[in-house]
Amino acid sequence: MARRRTERMIVTRVEGAADGVERRVRRRPDELIVEEPMSIQLDGTLVSTTMRTPGHDYELAVGFCLTDGLLAGHPVIGVRYCADGSAVDSEFNIVTVETGGRAPTPTPRLGNVSSSCGWCGSEQLDELCARLEPLAATEPVDLDVIATIADRVLDGQGLFAATGSVHAAAAFDASGSVLVTREDVGRHNAVDKVIGAIALGSVQGASVPATGLGLFVSGRASIEMVQKAWAAGFSTLVAVSAPTSLAVDAARRANLVLAGFVRGADFNVYAPERL
Amino acid sequence: MARRRTERMIVTRVEGAADGVERRVRRRPDELIVEEPMSIQLDGTLVSTTMRTPGHDYELAVGFCLTDGLLAGHPVIGVRYCADGSAVDSEFNIVTVETGGRAPTPTPRLGNVSSSCGWCGSEQLDELCARLEPLAATEPVDLDVIATIADRVLDGQGLFAATGSVHAAAAFDASGSVLVTREDVGRHNAVDKVIGAIALGSVQGASVPATGLGLFVSGRASIEMVQKAWAAGFSTLVAVSAPTSLAVDAARRANLVLAGFVRGADFNVYAPERL
Repeated sequence: MARRRTERMIVTRVEGAADGVERRVRRRPDELIVEEPMSIQLDGTLVSTTMRTPGHDYELAVGFCLTDGLLAGHPVIGVRYCADGSAVDSEFNIVTVETGGRAPTPTPRLGNVSSSCGWCGSEQLDELCARLEPLAATEPVDLDVIATIADRVLDGQGLFAATGSVHAAAAFDASGSVLVTREDVGRHNAVDKVIGAIALGSVQGASVPATGLGLFVSGRASIEMVQKAWAAGFSTLVAVSAPTSLAVDAARRANLVLAGFVRGADFNVYAPERL
Repeated sequence: MARRRTERMIVTRVEGAADGVERRVRRRPDELIVEEPMSIQLDGTLVSTTMRTPGHDYELAVGFCLTDGLLAGHPVIGVRYCADGSAVDSEFNIVTVETGGRAPTPTPRLGNVSSSCGWCGSEQLDELCARLEPLAATEPVDLDVIATIADRVLDGQGLFAATGSVHAAAAFDASGSVLVTREDVGRHNAVDKVIGAIALGSVQGASVPATGLGLFVSGRASIEMVQKAWAAGFSTLVAVSAPTSLAVDAARRANLVLAGFVRGADFNVYAPERL
């Protein structure tokens, strides 16, 4: 079933009122992004609930379980909508990822912190490092690719073109070709959808671990973004805005190239420590 | 204890490489925003964990419990850091809000969806409407205030000035005066800190319910933002970027004025349906 991702509404547009120009107020249609809750289950156990833009729900569920370390290396053998029978609308808002019970019983994720995380940033880093191997060194990153990737991804941002306000994530190869783009009201969801699409074999030229590939995110880079890129094995993470200091610490320990604060042809490289 | 909110790191700055200009690569210091996990407990029961910028932690915890409906109208009689003894660093990352056991035992919050939420957007709306009374109609909103509020809040965005990348929320009165501004790596945290500051009596000219006051957020308006503004009794919510369609539905049912997509003197009013 194709579910609606944008909704047309009548809004009041207010323009002008600067430098002696009279204010103009009129009603006009506007296209808004849709958000709906979705619950993610692993082998029937609820692990998280997220507000997401409908579409690519299986990818979102698989990407989340993979990057949160819940699969523990076990393959996904099925993904399905799990109707609870309570309401027709709810049917497509619960997704179960199945490993045939091979994955360890998950701990539900409280708030926006990974269930495996410690109580402070340095403990979080230590736990990530205990779970994930440092990435293998790859070819040096091409600075031209970083400088131009935001423009290249724009082509795939249809929901952004329609609404002017939605996050995007994309995977790209060493030459800067965009392999897959996903959009979502949540930045972390867009990233999970990209990684889930790759893990489910839907993206030509990409597989997990995504060695040699780059991950692009339209917003800022929190430690959660670095964790997801690292868990999926990307070599590079490019964020349009700045990372947090904890995200930089994590990227340096992961051996992940982290670039951000992209403004035209200018940007920062935060990791590795020395280019 | 004053905890660090930004951290200075050495990064690689890449500039130029456009229109025949040669690329310049150099190392230089950069100021990055800090994120650390914080767990929120209500009367000793864990309700959520969030990645936040340290500072105003009591406000964050109180604002979260209030806007998530966990207090159920009971007054906060105390807020404290709860050391679990496991590590010195952790001491300031667990905050307990106390009602003396009067608030109902909370359900832990899974992912980024309020624990009281239904399984689809319309169920979420119905549950919000069951919990919260529609807001009282107040004076018509001043369009000049909406057009200029982002600029006025900028004065209080010291962390943004230092890092170029952090969210802000603020409360303002009918004349457009900013009463309190809070910044955080998470938009929802910044809003909780503003509301918590008001609830704790730290903001002159504001109390909960914040009737007649406006709430400003630097990013987009999700249903979560509308829920928080509504729960705290604000009359107006101004978001710099666009709301989701569900946020507009919620604002219209709440009787909350919702403006967004502010670009200079131009913006949209999404709720009420007719200005």
